[in-house]
Amino acid sequence: MRDEAIYRDRFVVSDPSIIYLDGNSLGRLPKRTAELVPQVLQQQWGSELIGSWNKHWLALSTRIGDKIGRIIGASAGTTIVCDSTSVNLYKLAKGFLHRDRSRQVILTDRSNFPTDQYILQGLALDASQDGELRRICLDDVPPEYAIDRIADALSDDVGLVSLSHVHYKSGMALDLARITRLVQDRGAAMLWDISHSVGAMPIDIEKSGAYGAVGCTYKYLNGGPGAPAFLYVRSDLQDVVCNPIQGWFGAARPFDFGEDYSPATGVQRFLVGTPPILSMAAIEPGVDLVLEAGISWLRSRSLGMTEYLIEQYDVRLLPRGYRLQTPRDPIYRGSHVSLQHEHAWPITQALIHEHMVIPDFRQPDTIRFGITPLYTTYDELDRAVDALVNVLEQRQHLHYPRERQGVT
Amino acid sequence: MRDEAIYRDRFVVSDPSIIYLDGNSLGRLPKRTAELVPQVLQQQWGSELIGSWNKHWLALSTRIGDKIGRIIGASAGTTIVCDSTSVNLYKLAKGFLHRDRSRQVILTDRSNFPTDQYILQGLALDASQDGELRRICLDDVPPEYAIDRIADALSDDVGLVSLSHVHYKSGMALDLARITRLVQDRGAAMLWDISHSVGAMPIDIEKSGAYGAVGCTYKYLNGGPGAPAFLYVRSDLQDVVCNPIQGWFGAARPFDFGEDYSPATGVQRFLVGTPPILSMAAIEPGVDLVLEAGISWLRSRSLGMTEYLIEQYDVRLLPRGYRLQTPRDPIYRGSHVSLQHEHAWPITQALIHEHMVIPDFRQPDTIRFGITPLYTTYDELDRAVDALVNVLEQRQHLHYPRERQGVT
Repeated sequence: MRDEAIYRDRFVVSDPSIIYLDGNSLGRLPKRTAELVPQVLQQQWGSELIGSWNKHWLALSTRIGDKIGRIIGASAGTTIVCDSTSVNLYKLAKGFLHRDRSRQVILTDRSNFPTDQYILQGLALDASQDGELRRICLDDVPPEYAIDRIADALSDDVGLVSLSHVHYKSGMALDLARITRLVQDRGAAMLWDISHSVGAMPIDIEKSGAYGAVGCTYKYLNGGPGAPAFLYVRSDLQDVVCNPIQGWFGAARPFDFGEDYSPATGVQRFLVGTPPILSMAAIEPGVDLVLEAGISWLRSRSLGMTEYLIEQYDVRLLPRGYRLQTPRDPIYRGSHVSLQHEHAWPITQALIHEHMVIPDFRQPDTIRFGITPLYTTYDELDRAVDALVNVLEQRQHLHYPRERQGVT
Repeated sequence: MRDEAIYRDRFVVSDPSIIYLDGNSLGRLPKRTAELVPQVLQQQWGSELIGSWNKHWLALSTRIGDKIGRIIGASAGTTIVCDSTSVNLYKLAKGFLHRDRSRQVILTDRSNFPTDQYILQGLALDASQDGELRRICLDDVPPEYAIDRIADALSDDVGLVSLSHVHYKSGMALDLARITRLVQDRGAAMLWDISHSVGAMPIDIEKSGAYGAVGCTYKYLNGGPGAPAFLYVRSDLQDVVCNPIQGWFGAARPFDFGEDYSPATGVQRFLVGTPPILSMAAIEPGVDLVLEAGISWLRSRSLGMTEYLIEQYDVRLLPRGYRLQTPRDPIYRGSHVSLQHEHAWPITQALIHEHMVIPDFRQPDTIRFGITPLYTTYDELDRAVDALVNVLEQRQHLHYPRERQGVT
């Protein structure tokens, strides 16, 4: 019943003894990307120089955007690659809030990924005197009740609800379709951050009717460190909503060099400045791999692997003081499994340094194991579980500081 | 007296028969960058994976920023690499405007680079009901009188003046120090766009006292297509001015994953999201080359070459209907020379396709010749002038459409 990691050999795996379970932070390097980027560098920049803008580069934002659209259930012309997730969230949140001055309350999750909260806090300060950020907490609620907490917090002054589809810490997946319907029936705009789900689970963003979505490309899409993010805007809103950051790439005719900003039609108006081409071109092969494998195969393999890890947890890790943070119900589960432990930080250090198992630590006590169905193997999961057991049995975590110091 | 292009062999020049005079749009690929990027790709991303954030990547924004600081006369800790020029202009303009609600008029140049005008137009719409964009025109004024036009337009409600140091079309350089003093003595914040001067002429941004500056890295710094931009904020303002786009990379302790935004001290608070590493890492070798050559040598060579081109213009091009748009006084001249001609578009096409001379066309009638003192040669200038003569003598421009179609 164990599917094989049939796409693993499409990635650079320079040291197979390293168990890399952090593809939900930074996906691996696709071999095709390792070939493509030097071509972009040498041929397109080095030789073809300025001519590459017309020949190769101007099309990238929309071409890769449309491909990501196919991964998230969005039609061509609704998804575009640009800027960072934070900047994209800012643009769409501000644009959506602008449509109704009587609804300036922004609703989000107190346990949402920090940059999302920070961006929204800034917008609440910036909106006229009635701007406000209202926060509920979704990381201590059974997933099936999350929608009720949201419903309770909605009121007539809420103009925007911004949530993450999959929680960065617990791995809990929200019911995107039902929550969108609830929020928008109550008159607010729904804006999703799908960074932790894109490329690993099915998303029907267009069918949900959500106003918009943003997400990053460097996790399950394997687009490379800090690669440009994407944004989706529902097609009927594209010519209604304004991009507050009016850059020339979002203008109707940027190369006319006119004095007055006239926004492009369609999703292109949400572009801003000149995009970073080396990082943008590097996204495409990873996106192509996800399309080739298909989301239903990826989701099925991901669920099989998270399920297996949870079974191992019940037998081998629960008795040793680890606590499962990730929902058991597959409907509410993303593609990473999180364990809590009071010694999470030193355990993570021991996993890395003694066992070459690379998970991700999240404050204060979470160890995340990211499963990228394209390249993660069951054998890696076995070795990670062995390591989690051995660290405690051999008390290896005692060799490391109890608290994280500096960045990581 | 002709300095040699002693740094030319540090760049990839795959076809020496191409006369590339568009380094002010997209600088050439440094050989060191061609070596570095595949290392970042294979070693840092492919092999070291997530560990590269601490080991290599988190330091890039400030390390390269500090190096650019040395090029523009700014102390360490005042310049940082991030986002696009447009996004950086938005952040600083909005941040500076925020400090005094009674001064919400933004002053700029009607002939400023379009994205600057568009960004400022958006901010004028966004500021409270008293927001306004006031525009003067600086491209039809003798350069020594530009400061008077600015002085005439200043009033007590002007909170921000945003100008380009070197004009993207004419190549006119403004007197950065005197204009800054004028503007700030009158109570407004001065924000410079130094995209068209950084790396080609001396800039003493800190000594000028300007509130801030933004600029791109892909012209004379040779950082690569769409490479991240930079911003400078005067040190005493860094902890006073707010970044309106509050992302996690601008937070004091992003990896604590706290709920509430607390801005970083220093210029780092103007960061937003995760930076595109392949494009960011690619900037450093070009910046290093500028530092190695030194701005005074670069400026001297640049002036020698623009001077030579203007001499050739007087003798060979003026009689053929070309008109010099660039100031003759070297004090007011950047590093490109612009010629106007009623057939500028078809002439540009003939230069490219018949003579392999690559200048840049700018609407409606300007042909720009960018001189990058690191790699442009006098021989290239001779061949460009020959081509400008030959196109008209042989009526080659008649084979091309009179008007530009599509983008370029």
